[in-house]
Amino acid sequence: MNIDKITSFTVMDILEKAKEMEKQGIDVIHLEIGEPDLPVPTNAIEKLKEYLSIYRIGYSHSLGIQELRESISKYYFEEYKVEVPTSNIIITPGSSTGIYLIISILLEEGGEFITLDPSYPCYPNFILHSNGKVIRINVFKENNFNPEIKEVKSSITKNTKGIIFASPSNPTGTLIKKEIIEELLNMEIPIIVDEIYQGIVFSKFKYESSTVKYFKKDGNLIISNGFSKYFAMSGWRIGWILLPDRFIKNFQKLLQNIVISTSLPSQILANICINYFRNDFESYVKIYEERLNLAKDYLNKFGFSLGYEIEGGFYIFLDLSNYTNNSYEVCKKLLEEYAVAITPGTDFGKNKTNKFVRISLTNRKENILLGLERLINMIYSYHPNPRPI
Amino acid sequence: MNIDKITSFTVMDILEKAKEMEKQGIDVIHLEIGEPDLPVPTNAIEKLKEYLSIYRIGYSHSLGIQELRESISKYYFEEYKVEVPTSNIIITPGSSTGIYLIISILLEEGGEFITLDPSYPCYPNFILHSNGKVIRINVFKENNFNPEIKEVKSSITKNTKGIIFASPSNPTGTLIKKEIIEELLNMEIPIIVDEIYQGIVFSKFKYESSTVKYFKKDGNLIISNGFSKYFAMSGWRIGWILLPDRFIKNFQKLLQNIVISTSLPSQILANICINYFRNDFESYVKIYEERLNLAKDYLNKFGFSLGYEIEGGFYIFLDLSNYTNNSYEVCKKLLEEYAVAITPGTDFGKNKTNKFVRISLTNRKENILLGLERLINMIYSYHPNPRPI
Repeated sequence: MNIDKITSFTVMDILEKAKEMEKQGIDVIHLEIGEPDLPVPTNAIEKLKEYLSIYRIGYSHSLGIQELRESISKYYFEEYKVEVPTSNIIITPGSSTGIYLIISILLEEGGEFITLDPSYPCYPNFILHSNGKVIRINVFKENNFNPEIKEVKSSITKNTKGIIFASPSNPTGTLIKKEIIEELLNMEIPIIVDEIYQGIVFSKFKYESSTVKYFKKDGNLIISNGFSKYFAMSGWRIGWILLPDRFIKNFQKLLQNIVISTSLPSQILANICINYFRNDFESYVKIYEERLNLAKDYLNKFGFSLGYEIEGGFYIFLDLSNYTNNSYEVCKKLLEEYAVAITPGTDFGKNKTNKFVRISLTNRKENILLGLERLINMIYSYHPNPRPI
Repeated sequence: MNIDKITSFTVMDILEKAKEMEKQGIDVIHLEIGEPDLPVPTNAIEKLKEYLSIYRIGYSHSLGIQELRESISKYYFEEYKVEVPTSNIIITPGSSTGIYLIISILLEEGGEFITLDPSYPCYPNFILHSNGKVIRINVFKENNFNPEIKEVKSSITKNTKGIIFASPSNPTGTLIKKEIIEELLNMEIPIIVDEIYQGIVFSKFKYESSTVKYFKKDGNLIISNGFSKYFAMSGWRIGWILLPDRFIKNFQKLLQNIVISTSLPSQILANICINYFRNDFESYVKIYEERLNLAKDYLNKFGFSLGYEIEGGFYIFLDLSNYTNNSYEVCKKLLEEYAVAITPGTDFGKNKTNKFVRISLTNRKENILLGLERLINMIYSYHPNPRPI
């Protein structure tokens, strides 16, 4: 199963080092973490607390509680104008577990699985853990990190078991274009679209940016999503997946055995959030967009243009190719000498990723500005000592 | 990966049917469910609620929060007089996920894995999902469901990657004897002991019944445990595993990728329970023991002796070989005609399991008595109509 090939994230080294520095009393600015800094609304937590006072928390149905599955169906209808049958919506303990399980089903007999480069590093790891062969298609900022259809076509063989990508993407924040999705859907292979950053979309209306309108009970499209990003529930570990009918039985068997059921308090809170607090989460999207605009303006002022359009999510994938061939060293130096933590591009693949860093906008504006100033300071001057705040 | 061979639980059919009956207004007596009916103490929930009012719930460390790992180490020292290094204690989203992941690591290169029959049905399924070959050793009530050492020895080949069993066992409630454990530990193969029912032990002192005293950082013993049974936290989905050093790095890589981290509120509540509410959980063990004694006496009165000693857990594995060769039919009839749900032995393996049923003592005494009376009534008279309460 290739465990040796499965990667840890180098950002974990950065995090470890940052923790050590913090123990020594150094204030580290965190722009490396892929989770919202914004809270689940207090009133949602209060509603959960009422529930916890009344009910015993037992195992729930392996596919998730019916109320939540219905709420997600209602959510798709109200926000995206799409009807998704409740029976195709399955709750998981985080979107990662769901993606892992469906890839393990698709690769049951082995085979090849296509992913983009750069992309979320767990995809190749899931493929490897299921004894699959990872086929990477390079994507570039010049094309807003979308794949070329002819390249996808030429990557498909008789052993291809599926393709996976995120939209909006981690680390780039770009959407896969409608035309590309439509072409892919004609290719008769299973397509997993990781929409975990869906909802956090700036430039388009939500119902245009999600692929949910293409979902069919007998189709090839699988959509993964969860409550960790838009709904800010990262630590509660809860996601969902839309599965065509033919995958549900096997997926349920794996859930029953490996997971039993998803944490019930997390399901209750998710149900509260998706039904009653959407306005709060929409206001968070505005906050992320303000931070992005602030960061873009600031970077522009110092001669850094992104060179591509960020359409959603809360990351900037910054091209430092004029300055470095070793993004890990940049991140290490920025942390050790300037007390700013960001993520090296190399965590997201092999395609020019040594020239990129990922900056996460999950921090207050003033910290984002300070972090960027120190990065720019470092790049221009290679100042040897930490600059005081 | 053998998904077709992976079994669903037939008790799920029973549960579905029971739900239908309840919708029609029929009171079903539930003696099929493997989860405590007793609650997490209200004061523990209150402490968690205080925490939720103050802190944002973000991702936690992939191996679990340090406080909980230390509390488990302290628990082993205080309750079992054994020192377990915190670094070998890893938190998982339920013990099942932990067992699944370590089996997938042990079977990385394929191979055989030994399990007992009857035993918890997920073990063979985990082995199958990792492309392993399931080797079953039959165990019998005459031997208190312990394996014969000579049989284990003759089952071991050069392809054997490990052995897994539970102690106390599900479905039998028996412990694996000290001498057997010690012999197994001499065999130089990894041994996974599932101690999820540990703590719920009647006939022996806890520190004699757990295998934790044999755990070594460089040893072959892996111990799985969790908060779902003794600590009554089933719906919160949290477990732990004791791993020798050499497995930790790969286990962490899989956790980072597939799980990210375990639900933080569940970790907080577990830490509260294990530190401050042990007396409550000890009182629950007395309740299970009272129920067991009541059930045994009642069964004896009607000529049913168990024929083995139940030492822990909350199940009776009842031998109906004088009455049936089809335990599933017995369970179906008992539900449909007497409104009592129990689990067919066939869910736990192939070794005479068609002659056994599992009765779960996770219900009030009066319901246990009513359920048993109806079972006996059915066996003796095959009365065609539900008997009114």
